[in-house]
Amino acid sequence: MLTFIGLGLYDERSITVEGREALASANRAAAEFYTSHLVGATIDELASYHDLDIDVRDRAGVEQEPDDLLGAAEDEHVAFLTAGDTMISTTHVDLRLRAIERGIETRVIHGVTAQTAASGLTGLQNYRFGKAVTLPFPYAHGAGGVPQSVVDSIEANRERGLHTLVYLDIKAEREEYMTADVAAEMLADGWTDALGVAVARAGSPEPTVAADRLSVLADREFGEPLHLLVIPGDLHHVESDALATLGGAPEDVLIKNEV
Amino acid sequence: MLTFIGLGLYDERSITVEGREALASANRAAAEFYTSHLVGATIDELASYHDLDIDVRDRAGVEQEPDDLLGAAEDEHVAFLTAGDTMISTTHVDLRLRAIERGIETRVIHGVTAQTAASGLTGLQNYRFGKAVTLPFPYAHGAGGVPQSVVDSIEANRERGLHTLVYLDIKAEREEYMTADVAAEMLADGWTDALGVAVARAGSPEPTVAADRLSVLADREFGEPLHLLVIPGDLHHVESDALATLGGAPEDVLIKNEV
Repeated sequence: MLTFIGLGLYDERSITVEGREALASANRAAAEFYTSHLVGATIDELASYHDLDIDVRDRAGVEQEPDDLLGAAEDEHVAFLTAGDTMISTTHVDLRLRAIERGIETRVIHGVTAQTAASGLTGLQNYRFGKAVTLPFPYAHGAGGVPQSVVDSIEANRERGLHTLVYLDIKAEREEYMTADVAAEMLADGWTDALGVAVARAGSPEPTVAADRLSVLADREFGEPLHLLVIPGDLHHVESDALATLGGAPEDVLIKNEV
Repeated sequence: MLTFIGLGLYDERSITVEGREALASANRAAAEFYTSHLVGATIDELASYHDLDIDVRDRAGVEQEPDDLLGAAEDEHVAFLTAGDTMISTTHVDLRLRAIERGIETRVIHGVTAQTAASGLTGLQNYRFGKAVTLPFPYAHGAGGVPQSVVDSIEANRERGLHTLVYLDIKAEREEYMTADVAAEMLADGWTDALGVAVARAGSPEPTVAADRLSVLADREFGEPLHLLVIPGDLHHVESDALATLGGAPEDVLIKNEV
Protein backbone atom coordinates (compact mmCIF):
# COMPACT_ATOMS: atom_id res chain seq x y z
CA MET A 1 0.00 0.00 0.00
CA LEU A 2 1.17 3.48 -0.88
CA THR A 3 -0.27 6.40 1.10
CA PHE A 4 0.38 9.91 -0.17
CA ILE A 5 0.38 12.37 2.72
CA GLY A 6 0.43 16.16 2.52
CA LEU A 7 2.40 17.53 5.49
CA GLY A 8 0.77 20.96 5.43
CA LEU A 9 2.39 24.35 5.28
CA TYR A 10 4.83 24.97 8.04
CA ASP A 11 6.24 22.44 10.51
CA GLU A 12 5.83 18.90 11.84
CA ARG A 13 2.51 19.80 13.47
CA SER A 14 0.88 21.04 10.24
CA ILE A 15 -0.09 17.48 9.28
CA THR A 16 -3.62 16.25 9.99
CA VAL A 17 -4.25 13.81 12.84
CA GLU A 18 -5.32 11.28 10.20
CA GLY A 19 -2.04 11.81 8.35
CA ARG A 20 -0.05 11.40 11.52
CA GLU A 21 -1.80 8.15 12.36
CA ALA A 22 -1.30 6.80 8.83
CA LEU A 23 2.38 7.65 9.10
CA ALA A 24 2.60 5.87 12.45
CA SER A 25 1.25 2.71 10.82
CA ALA A 26 3.64 2.88 7.83
CA ASN A 27 6.58 0.47 7.58
CA ARG A 28 8.66 3.02 5.74
CA ALA A 29 8.46 6.62 4.59
CA ALA A 30 9.88 8.44 1.59
CA ALA A 31 9.60 12.16 0.85
CA GLU A 32 10.40 14.70 -1.80
CA PHE A 33 11.21 18.27 -0.80
CA TYR A 34 12.40 19.61 -4.16
CA THR A 35 9.03 20.97 -5.27
CA SER A 36 8.46 22.58 -1.87
CA HIS A 37 9.55 22.02 1.70
CA LEU A 38 8.64 22.81 5.29
CA VAL A 39 10.43 25.95 6.46
CA GLY A 40 9.46 25.40 10.11
CA ALA A 41 11.00 21.96 10.59
CA THR A 42 14.15 20.20 9.47
CA ILE A 43 14.01 16.69 8.11
CA ASP A 44 15.57 15.45 11.36
CA GLU A 45 12.89 17.19 13.40
CA LEU A 46 10.22 15.69 11.21
CA ALA A 47 11.71 12.20 11.48
CA SER A 48 12.13 12.51 15.22
CA TYR A 49 8.57 13.80 15.72
CA HIS A 50 7.11 10.88 13.79
CA ASP A 51 9.70 8.44 15.15
CA LEU A 52 10.71 6.97 11.81
CA ASP A 53 13.37 7.31 9.13
CA ILE A 54 12.48 9.42 6.13
CA ASP A 55 14.11 8.54 2.84
CA VAL A 56 14.37 11.97 1.18
CA ARG A 57 14.54 11.65 -2.60
CA ASP A 58 15.71 13.99 -5.30
CA ARG A 59 13.87 14.41 -8.58
CA ALA A 60 15.59 11.45 -10.22
CA GLY A 61 14.82 9.28 -7.20
CA VAL A 62 11.10 9.96 -7.60
CA GLU A 63 10.67 10.30 -11.33
CA GLN A 64 13.22 7.93 -12.87
CA GLU A 65 13.93 5.45 -10.10
CA PRO A 66 10.81 4.86 -8.02
CA ASP A 67 10.95 1.09 -8.58
CA ASP A 68 12.28 0.19 -5.14
CA LEU A 69 9.56 2.30 -3.54
CA LEU A 70 6.83 0.70 -5.62
CA GLY A 71 8.32 -2.73 -5.00
CA ALA A 72 8.21 -2.13 -1.24
CA ALA A 73 4.63 -0.85 -1.47
CA GLU A 74 3.58 -4.18 -2.95
CA ASP A 75 4.32 -5.91 0.35
CA GLU A 76 4.37 -3.20 2.99
CA HIS A 77 2.72 0.08 3.88
CA VAL A 78 4.83 2.88 2.38
CA ALA A 79 4.10 6.56 3.04
CA PHE A 80 5.12 9.20 0.51
CA LEU A 81 5.39 12.67 2.05
CA THR A 82 5.31 16.12 0.49
CA ALA A 83 5.16 19.64 1.90
CA GLY A 84 1.77 21.37 1.62
CA ASP A 85 -0.69 19.10 -0.11
CA THR A 86 0.13 15.95 -1.96
CA MET A 87 -0.71 15.68 -5.71
CA ILE A 88 0.21 19.36 -6.19
CA SER A 89 2.94 18.26 -8.58
CA THR A 90 2.22 16.04 -11.60
CA THR A 91 5.12 13.94 -10.32
CA HIS A 92 2.98 12.78 -7.41
CA VAL A 93 0.04 11.96 -9.68
CA ASP A 94 2.34 10.08 -12.01
CA LEU A 95 3.72 8.04 -9.09
CA ARG A 96 0.21 7.19 -7.96
CA LEU A 97 -0.79 6.05 -11.46
CA ARG A 98 2.32 3.86 -11.70
CA ALA A 99 1.45 2.28 -8.35
CA ILE A 100 -2.12 1.54 -9.44
CA GLU A 101 -0.79 -0.03 -12.66
CA ARG A 102 1.20 -2.42 -10.51
CA GLY A 103 -1.90 -3.32 -8.55
CA ILE A 104 -0.84 -1.43 -5.42
CA GLU A 105 -3.58 0.01 -3.24
CA THR A 106 -3.16 3.79 -2.90
CA ARG A 107 -4.61 6.39 -0.62
CA VAL A 108 -4.42 10.18 -0.48
CA ILE A 109 -4.40 12.14 2.79
CA HIS A 110 -4.74 15.81 2.05
CA GLY A 111 -2.73 18.66 3.54
CA VAL A 112 -3.45 22.35 3.92
CA THR A 113 -2.47 24.33 0.83
CA ALA A 114 -1.09 27.81 0.28
CA GLN A 115 -4.26 28.58 -1.65
CA THR A 116 -6.35 27.83 1.42
CA ALA A 117 -4.10 29.91 3.64
CA ALA A 118 -3.98 32.85 1.21
CA SER A 119 -7.72 33.10 1.36
CA GLY A 120 -8.02 32.39 5.09
CA LEU A 121 -5.39 34.92 6.18
CA THR A 122 -6.42 37.81 3.93
CA GLY A 123 -10.20 37.55 4.29
CA LEU A 124 -10.52 37.37 0.49
CA GLN A 125 -13.25 34.87 -0.37
CA ASN A 126 -12.02 31.59 -1.84
CA TYR A 127 -14.69 31.37 -4.56
CA ARG A 128 -13.68 34.81 -5.87
CA PHE A 129 -10.18 33.67 -6.92
CA GLY A 130 -9.51 32.99 -10.61
CA LYS A 131 -6.70 30.88 -12.01
CA ALA A 132 -3.52 31.02 -9.93
CA VAL A 133 -0.12 31.78 -11.48
CA THR A 134 3.52 31.17 -10.59
CA LEU A 135 5.98 34.02 -10.94
CA PRO A 136 9.37 32.54 -11.90
CA PHE A 137 12.77 34.02 -11.15
CA PRO A 138 13.69 36.04 -14.27
CA TYR A 139 16.78 33.88 -14.88
CA ALA A 140 14.67 30.73 -14.69
CA HIS A 141 12.41 31.41 -17.64
CA GLY A 142 15.07 32.83 -19.91
CA ALA A 143 13.58 36.26 -20.54
CA GLY A 144 13.65 39.31 -18.27
CA GLY A 145 10.64 40.47 -16.27
CA VAL A 146 7.24 38.86 -16.02
CA PRO A 147 6.28 36.11 -18.50
CA GLN A 148 3.45 37.09 -20.83
CA SER A 149 1.38 34.09 -19.69
CA VAL A 150 1.41 35.47 -16.12
CA VAL A 151 0.40 38.94 -17.33
CA ASP A 152 -2.41 37.46 -19.40
CA SER A 153 -3.77 35.37 -16.54
CA ILE A 154 -3.77 38.28 -14.09
CA GLU A 155 -5.47 40.51 -16.69
CA ALA A 156 -8.08 37.85 -17.53
CA ASN A 157 -8.88 37.51 -13.82
CA ARG A 158 -9.05 41.28 -13.30
CA GLU A 159 -11.44 41.65 -16.23
CA ARG A 160 -13.78 39.22 -14.45
CA GLY A 161 -13.25 40.98 -11.11
CA LEU A 162 -11.41 37.94 -9.71
CA HIS A 163 -8.45 37.75 -7.35
CA THR A 164 -5.17 36.16 -8.47
CA LEU A 165 -2.96 34.11 -6.19
CA VAL A 166 0.64 34.52 -7.31
CA TYR A 167 2.86 31.64 -6.18
CA LEU A 168 6.47 32.82 -5.92
CA ASP A 169 9.28 30.77 -7.37
CA ILE A 170 11.07 28.33 -5.07
CA LYS A 171 14.36 26.62 -5.74
CA ALA A 172 14.09 24.45 -2.64
CA GLU A 173 17.33 22.58 -3.28
CA ARG A 174 19.26 25.86 -3.29
CA GLU A 175 17.12 27.39 -0.51
CA GLU A 176 16.27 30.23 -2.83
CA TYR A 177 12.82 31.76 -2.37
CA MET A 178 11.36 34.71 -4.22
CA THR A 179 10.16 37.28 -1.69
CA ALA A 180 6.92 39.24 -1.94
CA ASP A 181 8.71 42.60 -2.27
CA VAL A 182 10.68 41.33 -5.27
CA ALA A 183 7.48 39.95 -6.82
CA ALA A 184 5.63 43.21 -6.13
CA GLU A 185 8.43 45.15 -7.81
CA MET A 186 8.31 42.90 -10.87
CA LEU A 187 4.54 43.25 -11.15
CA ALA A 188 4.54 46.99 -10.38
CA ASP A 189 6.14 47.47 -13.81
CA GLY A 190 2.77 46.75 -15.34
CA TRP A 191 0.38 47.72 -12.54
CA THR A 192 2.16 50.39 -10.43
CA ASP A 193 -0.86 51.60 -8.46
CA ALA A 194 -2.65 48.28 -8.32
CA LEU A 195 -3.51 46.83 -4.93
CA GLY A 196 -1.41 43.87 -3.85
CA VAL A 197 -1.43 41.71 -0.73
CA ALA A 198 1.77 40.14 0.56
CA VAL A 199 1.41 37.04 2.74
CA ALA A 200 4.47 35.74 4.56
CA ARG A 201 4.82 32.50 6.55
CA ALA A 202 1.30 31.24 5.88
CA GLY A 203 0.49 28.37 8.21
CA SER A 204 3.06 29.45 10.82
CA PRO A 205 2.11 30.82 14.24
CA GLU A 206 3.10 34.33 13.10
CA PRO A 207 2.03 35.00 9.54
CA THR A 208 2.26 38.50 8.07
CA VAL A 209 -0.36 40.10 5.82
CA ALA A 210 0.30 43.48 4.19
CA ALA A 211 -1.97 45.18 1.65
CA ASP A 212 -0.97 48.27 -0.30
CA ARG A 213 -0.04 49.49 -3.77
CA LEU A 214 2.37 47.09 -5.49
CA SER A 215 4.93 49.91 -5.77
CA VAL A 216 4.74 50.42 -2.00
CA LEU A 217 4.98 46.70 -1.20
CA ALA A 218 8.08 46.62 -3.42
CA ASP A 219 9.89 48.84 -0.88
CA ARG A 220 8.98 46.81 2.19
CA GLU A 221 10.38 43.63 3.72
CA PHE A 222 8.35 40.71 4.98
CA GLY A 223 10.90 38.56 6.79
CA GLU A 224 11.44 34.83 6.60
CA PRO A 225 9.98 32.70 3.73
CA LEU A 226 7.72 31.42 2.29
CA HIS A 227 5.95 34.39 0.74
CA LEU A 228 2.92 34.71 -1.51
CA LEU A 229 1.37 37.62 -3.31
CA VAL A 230 -2.30 38.18 -4.10
CA ILE A 231 -3.59 40.65 -6.70
CA PRO A 232 -7.18 41.35 -5.62
CA GLY A 233 -9.92 41.95 -8.14
CA ASP A 234 -13.21 43.52 -7.11
CA LEU A 235 -13.69 43.74 -3.35
CA HIS A 236 -16.90 43.10 -1.50
CA HIS A 237 -17.25 45.19 1.63
CA VAL A 238 -16.16 42.53 4.14
CA GLU A 239 -13.12 41.78 1.94
CA SER A 240 -12.26 45.46 1.87
CA ASP A 241 -12.67 45.75 5.65
CA ALA A 242 -10.47 42.66 6.07
CA LEU A 243 -7.64 44.08 3.96
CA ALA A 244 -7.80 47.33 5.95
CA THR A 245 -7.87 45.62 9.36
CA LEU A 246 -5.67 42.58 8.72
CA GLY A 247 -3.31 44.07 6.12
CA GLY A 248 -3.30 47.80 6.89
CA ALA A 249 -4.48 48.74 3.40
CA PRO A 250 -4.96 52.51 2.96
CA GLU A 251 -8.55 53.54 2.20
CA ASP A 252 -7.60 55.43 -0.98
CA VAL A 253 -6.05 52.27 -2.42
CA LEU A 254 -8.97 50.00 -1.47
CA ILE A 255 -11.62 52.31 -2.89
CA LYS A 256 -10.59 51.63 -6.49
CA ASN A 257 -11.36 47.92 -6.09
CA GLU A 258 -14.61 48.25 -4.18
CA VAL A 259 -17.85 47.35 -5.93
CA MET B 1 -7.84 35.16 22.56
CA LEU B 2 -9.99 33.83 19.75
CA THR B 3 -8.60 30.99 17.62
CA PHE B 4 -10.43 30.07 14.43
CA ILE B 5 -9.88 26.41 13.61
CA GLY B 6 -10.83 24.58 10.42
CA LEU B 7 -11.78 20.98 11.28
CA GLY B 8 -11.09 19.62 7.81
CA LEU B 9 -13.36 17.61 5.57
CA TYR B 10 -14.65 14.46 7.14
CA ASP B 11 -14.41 13.44 10.79
CA GLU B 12 -12.76 14.27 14.12
CA ARG B 13 -9.34 13.21 12.79
CA SER B 14 -9.38 15.57 9.81
CA ILE B 15 -8.10 18.45 11.97
CA THR B 16 -4.38 19.27 11.95
CA VAL B 17 -2.20 18.32 14.92
CA GLU B 18 -1.68 22.05 15.49
CA GLY B 19 -5.44 22.59 15.51
CA ARG B 20 -5.95 19.74 17.93
CA GLU B 21 -3.34 21.14 20.31
CA ALA B 22 -4.82 24.64 20.12
CA LEU B 23 -8.22 23.16 20.93
CA ALA B 24 -6.75 21.27 23.88
CA SER B 25 -5.46 24.56 25.29
CA ALA B 26 -8.76 26.41 24.81
CA ASN B 27 -10.98 27.23 27.80
CA ARG B 28 -14.10 26.94 25.72
CA ALA B 29 -15.16 26.08 22.20
CA ALA B 30 -17.97 27.28 19.98
CA ALA B 31 -18.82 26.04 16.49
CA GLU B 32 -21.12 26.70 13.61
CA PHE B 33 -22.23 23.85 11.38
CA TYR B 34 -24.88 25.66 9.33
CA THR B 35 -22.55 26.62 6.44
CA SER B 36 -21.11 23.10 6.34
CA HIS B 37 -20.63 20.20 8.71
CA LEU B 38 -18.63 17.02 9.21
CA VAL B 39 -20.48 14.04 7.79
CA GLY B 40 -18.10 11.52 9.40
CA ALA B 41 -18.52 12.57 13.04
CA THR B 42 -21.41 13.71 15.21
CA ILE B 43 -21.04 16.69 17.49
CA ASP B 44 -20.93 14.32 20.47
CA GLU B 45 -18.12 12.32 18.88
CA LEU B 46 -16.22 15.51 18.18
CA ALA B 47 -16.70 16.77 21.73
CA SER B 48 -15.71 13.43 23.21
CA TYR B 49 -12.61 13.14 21.01
CA HIS B 50 -11.39 16.57 22.05
CA ASP B 51 -12.66 16.15 25.60
CA LEU B 52 -14.52 19.44 25.81
CA ASP B 53 -17.99 20.89 25.40
CA ILE B 54 -18.80 22.46 22.07
CA ASP B 55 -21.32 25.28 22.02
CA VAL B 56 -22.94 24.81 18.60
CA ARG B 57 -24.46 28.04 17.36
CA ASP B 58 -27.05 28.79 14.74
CA ARG B 59 -26.74 31.67 12.31
CA ALA B 60 -28.24 34.21 14.71
CA GLY B 61 -25.91 33.03 17.47
CA VAL B 62 -22.88 33.82 15.32
CA GLU B 63 -24.00 36.81 13.31
CA GLN B 64 -26.35 38.73 15.59
CA GLU B 65 -25.40 37.61 19.07
CA PRO B 66 -21.68 36.87 19.24
CA ASP B 67 -21.17 39.28 22.18
CA ASP B 68 -20.85 36.61 24.87
CA LEU B 69 -18.27 34.77 22.76
CA LEU B 70 -16.27 37.93 22.18
CA GLY B 71 -16.59 38.89 25.83
CA ALA B 72 -15.21 35.50 26.88
CA ALA B 73 -12.37 35.81 24.37
CA GLU B 74 -11.25 39.01 26.10
CA ASP B 75 -10.27 37.01 29.19
CA GLU B 76 -9.92 33.41 28.07
CA HIS B 77 -8.83 31.33 25.11
CA VAL B 78 -11.90 30.65 22.98
CA ALA B 79 -11.81 28.35 19.94
CA PHE B 80 -14.26 28.82 17.10
CA LEU B 81 -14.71 25.70 14.98
CA THR B 82 -15.97 25.21 11.46
CA ALA B 83 -16.09 22.25 9.08
CA GLY B 84 -13.52 22.32 6.26
CA ASP B 85 -11.47 25.47 6.47
CA THR B 86 -12.22 28.46 8.61
CA MET B 87 -12.84 31.85 6.94
CA ILE B 88 -14.66 30.17 4.05
CA SER B 89 -17.76 32.12 4.99
CA THR B 90 -17.78 35.92 5.28
CA THR B 91 -19.43 35.30 8.65
CA HIS B 92 -16.15 33.98 10.00
CA VAL B 93 -14.19 36.93 8.60
CA ASP B 94 -16.73 39.33 10.07
CA LEU B 95 -16.41 37.67 13.50
CA ARG B 96 -12.63 37.96 13.34
CA LEU B 97 -12.81 41.66 12.43
CA ARG B 98 -15.21 42.31 15.32
CA ALA B 99 -12.82 40.55 17.69
CA ILE B 100 -9.86 42.63 16.50
CA GLU B 101 -11.91 45.81 16.94
CA ARG B 102 -12.37 44.85 20.58
CA GLY B 103 -8.63 44.37 20.99
CA ILE B 104 -8.83 40.57 21.13
CA GLU B 105 -5.86 38.63 19.82
CA THR B 106 -6.93 36.30 17.00
CA ARG B 107 -5.34 33.38 15.24
CA VAL B 108 -6.29 31.25 12.26
CA ILE B 109 -5.50 27.52 12.02
CA HIS B 110 -6.29 26.30 8.55
CA GLY B 111 -8.14 23.14 7.59
CA VAL B 112 -8.17 21.08 4.42
CA THR B 113 -10.69 22.38 1.88
CA ALA B 114 -12.91 20.72 -0.69
CA GLN B 115 -10.95 22.61 -3.34
CA THR B 116 -7.74 20.91 -2.24
CA ALA B 117 -9.38 17.51 -2.17
CA ALA B 118 -11.07 17.95 -5.56
CA SER B 119 -7.69 18.51 -7.12
CA GLY B 120 -5.85 15.87 -5.08
CA LEU B 121 -8.36 13.09 -5.71
CA THR B 122 -8.92 13.67 -9.43
CA GLY B 123 -5.33 14.35 -10.49
CA LEU B 124 -6.46 17.64 -12.06
CA GLN B 125 -3.76 20.24 -11.40
CA ASN B 126 -4.71 22.88 -8.86
CA TYR B 127 -3.29 25.84 -10.82
CA ARG B 128 -5.46 24.92 -13.83
CA PHE B 129 -8.75 25.61 -12.00
CA GLY B 130 -10.57 28.86 -12.72
CA LYS B 131 -13.18 30.50 -10.51
CA ALA B 132 -15.28 28.01 -8.54
CA VAL B 133 -19.08 28.15 -8.53
CA THR B 134 -21.89 26.92 -6.28
CA LEU B 135 -24.87 25.19 -7.82
CA PRO B 136 -27.94 26.00 -5.72
CA PHE B 137 -31.04 23.88 -5.34
CA PRO B 138 -33.50 25.20 -7.96
CA TYR B 139 -36.03 26.16 -5.27
CA ALA B 140 -33.34 28.10 -3.39
CA HIS B 141 -32.59 30.66 -6.06
CA GLY B 142 -36.16 31.23 -7.14
CA ALA B 143 -35.81 30.28 -10.82
CA GLY B 144 -35.67 26.81 -12.36
CA GLY B 145 -32.47 25.24 -13.62
CA VAL B 146 -28.96 26.58 -13.48
CA PRO B 147 -28.44 30.26 -12.61
CA GLN B 148 -26.99 32.29 -15.47
CA SER B 149 -24.03 33.36 -13.31
CA VAL B 150 -23.02 29.69 -12.94
CA VAL B 151 -23.34 29.10 -16.69
CA ASP B 152 -21.27 32.22 -17.40
CA SER B 153 -18.49 31.23 -14.98
CA ILE B 154 -18.22 27.70 -16.38
CA GLU B 155 -18.18 29.06 -19.94
CA ALA B 156 -15.56 31.69 -19.10
CA ASN B 157 -13.36 28.99 -17.56
CA ARG B 158 -13.84 26.64 -20.52
CA GLU B 159 -12.90 29.40 -22.95
CA ARG B 160 -9.59 29.70 -21.11
CA GLY B 161 -9.18 25.91 -20.96
CA LEU B 162 -9.64 25.93 -17.16
CA HIS B 163 -11.35 23.43 -14.87
CA THR B 164 -14.37 24.49 -12.80
CA LEU B 165 -15.04 23.18 -9.32
CA VAL B 166 -18.80 23.11 -8.75
CA TYR B 167 -19.74 23.18 -5.07
CA LEU B 168 -23.13 21.57 -4.55
CA ASP B 169 -25.76 23.21 -2.40
CA ILE B 170 -25.94 22.20 1.26
CA LYS B 171 -28.77 22.92 3.65
CA ALA B 172 -26.88 21.54 6.64
CA GLU B 173 -29.64 22.32 9.13
CA ARG B 174 -32.09 20.20 7.15
CA GLU B 175 -29.44 17.58 6.25
CA GLU B 176 -30.20 18.20 2.60
CA TYR B 177 -27.27 17.80 0.22
CA MET B 178 -27.30 18.10 -3.55
CA THR B 179 -25.83 14.94 -5.06
CA ALA B 180 -23.45 14.83 -8.01
CA ASP B 181 -25.93 12.97 -10.23
CA VAL B 182 -28.55 15.68 -9.70
CA ALA B 183 -25.96 18.37 -10.43
CA ALA B 184 -24.77 16.51 -13.53
CA GLU B 185 -28.34 16.27 -14.76
CA MET B 186 -28.90 20.00 -14.24
CA LEU B 187 -25.69 20.87 -16.08
CA ALA B 188 -26.24 18.27 -18.85
CA ASP B 189 -29.07 20.51 -20.05
CA GLY B 190 -26.45 22.90 -21.40
CA TRP B 191 -23.48 20.59 -21.94
CA THR B 192 -24.87 17.07 -22.58
CA ASP B 193 -21.68 15.50 -23.89
CA ALA B 194 -19.26 17.50 -21.77
CA LEU B 195 -16.89 15.64 -19.49
CA GLY B 196 -17.70 15.85 -15.79
CA VAL B 197 -16.03 14.38 -12.70
CA ALA B 198 -18.07 13.44 -9.66
CA VAL B 199 -16.24 13.33 -6.33
CA ALA B 200 -18.01 11.83 -3.32
CA ARG B 201 -16.86 11.79 0.31
CA ALA B 202 -13.66 13.78 -0.26
CA GLY B 203 -11.43 13.53 2.78
CA SER B 204 -12.97 10.26 3.95
CA PRO B 205 -11.13 6.92 3.90
CA GLU B 206 -13.22 5.83 0.91
CA PRO B 207 -13.77 8.64 -1.55
CA THR B 208 -15.30 7.97 -4.97
CA VAL B 209 -14.16 9.58 -8.23
CA ALA B 210 -16.11 9.01 -11.45
CA ALA B 211 -15.41 10.72 -14.77
CA ASP B 212 -17.75 10.51 -17.77
CA ARG B 213 -20.18 12.55 -19.87
CA LEU B 214 -22.47 14.69 -17.71
CA SER B 215 -25.48 12.89 -19.18
CA VAL B 216 -24.00 9.54 -18.08
CA LEU B 217 -23.09 10.76 -14.59
CA ALA B 218 -26.69 11.97 -14.28
CA ASP B 219 -27.84 8.32 -14.35
CA ARG B 220 -25.42 7.04 -11.74
CA GLU B 221 -25.40 7.13 -7.94
CA PHE B 222 -22.44 8.05 -5.77
CA GLY B 223 -23.56 7.11 -2.28
CA GLU B 224 -23.32 9.09 0.93
CA PRO B 225 -22.62 12.87 0.91
CA LEU B 226 -20.84 15.23 0.52
CA HIS B 227 -20.49 15.36 -3.25
CA LEU B 228 -18.70 17.72 -5.61
CA LEU B 229 -18.62 18.03 -9.36
CA VAL B 230 -15.75 19.19 -11.54
CA ILE B 231 -16.12 20.34 -15.15
CA PRO B 232 -12.65 19.86 -16.64
CA GLY B 233 -11.26 22.25 -19.23
CA ASP B 234 -8.26 21.30 -21.35
CA LEU B 235 -6.47 18.18 -20.13
CA HIS B 236 -2.73 17.69 -20.04
CA HIS B 237 -1.70 14.09 -20.59
CA VAL B 238 -1.14 13.17 -16.93
CA GLU B 239 -4.53 14.71 -16.09
CA SER B 240 -6.14 12.67 -18.82
CA ASP B 241 -4.41 9.48 -17.62
CA ALA B 242 -5.54 10.26 -14.08
CA LEU B 243 -9.20 10.64 -15.06
CA ALA B 244 -9.01 7.33 -16.95
CA THR B 245 -7.28 5.44 -14.13
CA LEU B 246 -8.84 7.06 -11.08
CA GLY B 247 -12.27 7.93 -12.50
CA GLY B 248 -12.81 5.33 -15.25
CA ALA B 249 -13.28 7.97 -17.94
CA PRO B 250 -13.85 6.48 -21.42
CA GLU B 251 -11.14 7.38 -23.95
CA ASP B 252 -13.61 8.82 -26.49
CA VAL B 253 -14.84 11.30 -23.90
CA LEU B 254 -11.37 12.33 -22.74
CA ILE B 255 -10.02 12.90 -26.21
CA LYS B 256 -12.15 15.99 -26.80
CA ASN B 257 -10.52 17.75 -23.84
CA GLU B 258 -6.94 16.72 -24.55
CA VAL B 259 -4.51 19.36 -25.77
